[in-house]
Amino acid sequence: MTRSELISQIRKKKSFLCVGLDPDIEKLPRHLLKEEDPVFAFNKQLIDATKDYCVAYKPNTAFYEALGVSGWVSLQKTAQYLREQCPHHFSIADAKRGDIGNTSARYAEAFLKNLDFDSITVAPYMGEDSVVPFLSVPDKWVILLALTSNKGAGDFQTLPVGEKSLFTRVLETSRRWGTPENMMYVVGATQAVMLSEIRKVVPDHFLLVPGVGAQGGSLEEVVKHGMNKDCGLLVNASRSIIYASSGTDFALKAGEEARKMQQEMESLLG
Amino acid sequence: MTRSELISQIRKKKSFLCVGLDPDIEKLPRHLLKEEDPVFAFNKQLIDATKDYCVAYKPNTAFYEALGVSGWVSLQKTAQYLREQCPHHFSIADAKRGDIGNTSARYAEAFLKNLDFDSITVAPYMGEDSVVPFLSVPDKWVILLALTSNKGAGDFQTLPVGEKSLFTRVLETSRRWGTPENMMYVVGATQAVMLSEIRKVVPDHFLLVPGVGAQGGSLEEVVKHGMNKDCGLLVNASRSIIYASSGTDFALKAGEEARKMQQEMESLLG
Repeated sequence: MTRSELISQIRKKKSFLCVGLDPDIEKLPRHLLKEEDPVFAFNKQLIDATKDYCVAYKPNTAFYEALGVSGWVSLQKTAQYLREQCPHHFSIADAKRGDIGNTSARYAEAFLKNLDFDSITVAPYMGEDSVVPFLSVPDKWVILLALTSNKGAGDFQTLPVGEKSLFTRVLETSRRWGTPENMMYVVGATQAVMLSEIRKVVPDHFLLVPGVGAQGGSLEEVVKHGMNKDCGLLVNASRSIIYASSGTDFALKAGEEARKMQQEMESLLG
Repeated sequence: MTRSELISQIRKKKSFLCVGLDPDIEKLPRHLLKEEDPVFAFNKQLIDATKDYCVAYKPNTAFYEALGVSGWVSLQKTAQYLREQCPHHFSIADAKRGDIGNTSARYAEAFLKNLDFDSITVAPYMGEDSVVPFLSVPDKWVILLALTSNKGAGDFQTLPVGEKSLFTRVLETSRRWGTPENMMYVVGATQAVMLSEIRKVVPDHFLLVPGVGAQGGSLEEVVKHGMNKDCGLLVNASRSIIYASSGTDFALKAGEEARKMQQEMESLLG
């Protein structure tokens, strides 16, 4: 998906919501466990119920890998369902990969070619040659970790490197590797106050913002400090939507939560 | 596997070789393609041919994920084969994972519990709560990226943070999260001259050293600057061993390459 297509979807739906598909087998509605593939059944119903209110989906690979081979089968089915049923939604493999070039090329093959996600989250620690193999896949995106939503973000990301913080150096250096047409950055909603600083370095790039909802970040603050003229935001919610109910009405409740967020976004988009 | 067991294996075998199991489907000996599971057939014969000369095996997850579901089947079979046939070899899931705590816990489940690897490589960028879930699995290890073997290591890892480099800060901060009994560090062989500095910060920790062989690092330099009283090194070679021949004699040639490295290590262990 191109940047202009994404912006057009955001305008059309008045939403910049990304729904995180993180199926935790212990939290799945019990009635789904009798399905042949409970994880895919869960995702399929969640997608059907939320797709009118969001512009992106983000399966987190850890939740699938924890289930071994059957988890990969579910991930593959989910990716295929997204491609077929939601061709206008932006899809994100939340994988946080990154390795030497020859290895990153294999991860690019796994997630951007074979599973055909629009994008993958990548960790920056290993530098340019660990990121470029993902960028070299045509029409696909890298979403690079900049300033994450967790407490540990303070261990290294905010350390001073000269007069700047490490995450600022990550932004400054990596923006030369790609363009706002094929790179985004992860910035946690719990770091909303830093978004104004981040916008000085990357005014045009989209930001993927996790941490609203279960992690406690504020949507209003994110918009206030992070929105640009094209919106420039994808705000992710996972647990607050997909586990809104643990009963047979889980998809209905997920749809309602997604709709609430869409409406809040619509009013903030003004 | 405990630290003392690992040291005992190194002394017994006079080797600190780790063999990287990175099966690239395009490089597999052609005669294996008629096997039901060519990747596992490749790994099994490599393991049988090299196990007397090495103390560790390191499958890199990217090469399996690039093959989708069948790749995960091969990875699972390889992990099981290592557990059953090589209980005295240290096994490493070279996965370079790391995410918020709730997600890292899922990766720990995938690789340290279900696949039962002794250890997993982890990227440090997201800080303490992204690493601790791996350390909380009993008897398992985290191998944290410190200074990697690739060119991109110079983009962020060697940046000055105050009077120290970022990778030194990673070592100093993270050594408080675990102990030399459950943490190691990745330091590339191409960075051998830095090993003396690294040893000042982590004198007792084992170091996993990739980059000897195809990437051009020198074993002698690694030993000169990085060895400690317990050896403290696992030196990995992947491509130079597993692709020593592309014919039906691939395992024989891999065994010969592994033996050569073991003999060089024996003389360096002196």
